[in-house]
Amino acid sequence: MKLRTFSGMRPTGKLHLGHMAGALSNWIKLQEDPGYDCFYGIVDWHAMMSDYANSSVIKGNCREVLLDWLAVGLDPEKSTIFVQSHVPEHAELSLALGMVTPLGWLQRNPTYKEQILNIQNKDLSTFGFLGYPVLMAADILLYRSSVVPVGEDQSAHLEITREIARRFNNFYGEVFPEPDILLTPTPKVPGTDGRKMSKSYGNSINIADTEKEMWNKLRTMMTDPARERKTDPGDPDKCPVWDIHKVFNHDEDEKADLASGCRTGSIGCVQCKKALKEHVVSMMSPIWERRAYYESRQETLDDILWNGADKARVVARETMDAVLEGIGFVPRR
Amino acid sequence: MKLRTFSGMRPTGKLHLGHMAGALSNWIKLQEDPGYDCFYGIVDWHAMMSDYANSSVIKGNCREVLLDWLAVGLDPEKSTIFVQSHVPEHAELSLALGMVTPLGWLQRNPTYKEQILNIQNKDLSTFGFLGYPVLMAADILLYRSSVVPVGEDQSAHLEITREIARRFNNFYGEVFPEPDILLTPTPKVPGTDGRKMSKSYGNSINIADTEKEMWNKLRTMMTDPARERKTDPGDPDKCPVWDIHKVFNHDEDEKADLASGCRTGSIGCVQCKKALKEHVVSMMSPIWERRAYYESRQETLDDILWNGADKARVVARETMDAVLEGIGFVPRR
Ligand code: SF4
Ligand code: SF4
Repeated sequence: MKLRTFSGMRPTGKLHLGHMAGALSNWIKLQEDPGYDCFYGIVDWHAMMSDYANSSVIKGNCREVLLDWLAVGLDPEKSTIFVQSHVPEHAELSLALGMVTPLGWLQRNPTYKEQILNIQNKDLSTFGFLGYPVLMAADILLYRSSVVPVGEDQSAHLEITREIARRFNNFYGEVFPEPDILLTPTPKVPGTDGRKMSKSYGNSINIADTEKEMWNKLRTMMTDPARERKTDPGDPDKCPVWDIHKVFNHDEDEKADLASGCRTGSIGCVQCKKALKEHVVSMMSPIWERRAYYESRQETLDDILWNGADKARVVARETMDAVLEGIGFVPRR
Repeated sequence: MKLRTFSGMRPTGKLHLGHMAGALSNWIKLQEDPGYDCFYGIVDWHAMMSDYANSSVIKGNCREVLLDWLAVGLDPEKSTIFVQSHVPEHAELSLALGMVTPLGWLQRNPTYKEQILNIQNKDLSTFGFLGYPVLMAADILLYRSSVVPVGEDQSAHLEITREIARRFNNFYGEVFPEPDILLTPTPKVPGTDGRKMSKSYGNSINIADTEKEMWNKLRTMMTDPARERKTDPGDPDKCPVWDIHKVFNHDEDEKADLASGCRTGSIGCVQCKKALKEHVVSMMSPIWERRAYYESRQETLDDILWNGADKARVVARETMDAVLEGIGFVPRR
């Protein structure tokens, strides 16, 4: 039997090369692996948690995320791609799981405490936001996922889902498998300023950027600060542009030449960046084509999400039937 | 246009004469009033909040509540009678409302603080229980109720629903009417020990009790403690049996005779209780008949709940469409 897996992304805007090299490339590997049955959700309720005061952007952001997903190769024929709020069972299971989730687990959750402290421009002291891990557990458990692909830095996030599953099963019988962590590689992809690529830093190179936009960002991207002049020797290991070479340039001979040219001061950064640009553009070209194809086909996009929700609901309903029976409610028709 | 109204009861067991004289008689008045469109829900998610560790009793309790409702005259042809968990939109709306509900409103809620302190034999420090008022608001607002019948002691409960509705409307447009309180009389109905009739005191006379069970409870019921002997003068105003006379005995002449007989010590309490019993039994006879009729018809009961849920969902879906559109999510199919 195939192993089910759920992963989600919050629709907060366009995705960037960091998403592509990290989560999305892992998702595509799972999609192509006949051992897995993949559910990929655009988790709009989660976006509302933090953006409830500005929720009108969510719809457009869902569209961007879907376009980026399709562009990089998520395939609605192979994976179940849908919007969380189109599958009401997410809300139902979240309600059910909340009944058995001790408040202390949520209040002591380090991510929660951190976000409440760090995010100053939004009021996150709502009931909904406190329940973030409960809804996340519902997302994963609704598909009775056996594994969840998780980046190295995030494995703690899954622990509370496993605890909630255990506690629920303890009360109501073995309704859920305890999902295992599938640790997936997340290569370092710095943004234009050398920090981790992130929308909130304003340093990202987006999947949807044009060739020209991408080149403008690469061209002005931070390099090894020691290289003030073209003839100054540099160190690729101190250069964020080189980190991007490592992820997207697979021509080892060329990389060896560039690295030695950098170290000896015999090539300029512009040349190094142009070489990188060629690789990025050739990788992105089919992705841009797919994005352009779908961008002009709103009805196709709607159908993908609606059909995905229908497919997701078949599994979601089965799970909810087991959940409600386990609790001992009056059966539905 | 008819005014919509929602009321619910938690399925925690058989209902008693206190429910009948209070909430249920008001519900029936609203049902018979052509100005109202009534939604009556057996709120099983609310029962799970406190009984999550012993949820297997919920199904049977739903049946008892439904039988009692039908017995006293709630009519599925006139009112929409259903089980909360059969209408998934309760969970969805609860999730949506939770996003805008400040944690402080829930933590400072006096009922919450009181229950956490008072209920020692159950662990109520769960995420679900903290969200009680959010789910209650969802129950009421899902039917865009304009009025909610509320007993005199409970009007504070509705205030938080009104506040949540205001806050939601403030963010997303006028989705909900702010429901008004319809203050309804709740006559004093003491239990057999003289305290307020309540399942948790073990002092209740249930709608489902047989004539014999009822008489046994009335016969041994507490009276004016001054009347040790039949010839001791008593005071009906100090007698819980008399409180029940006031609610269920409408023969004013007989009541005048009994009261003066009590005051002069010329009648015994057994005589007074027998007179009461006659009135209660003649009131209960058609109720018992209806209860017996439905008790042996499980399929009819199932159909009533399932058809009720279908009717409720028509309204619930309309409301959720407006909610999701107001938030600005991607439309569903
Ligand atoms: S030559 Fe390339 S690796 Fe060296 S500093 Fe410039 S951009 Fe970075
Ligand atoms: S005679 Fe009736 S009213 Fe008087 S004390 Fe007895 S039961 Fe109560």
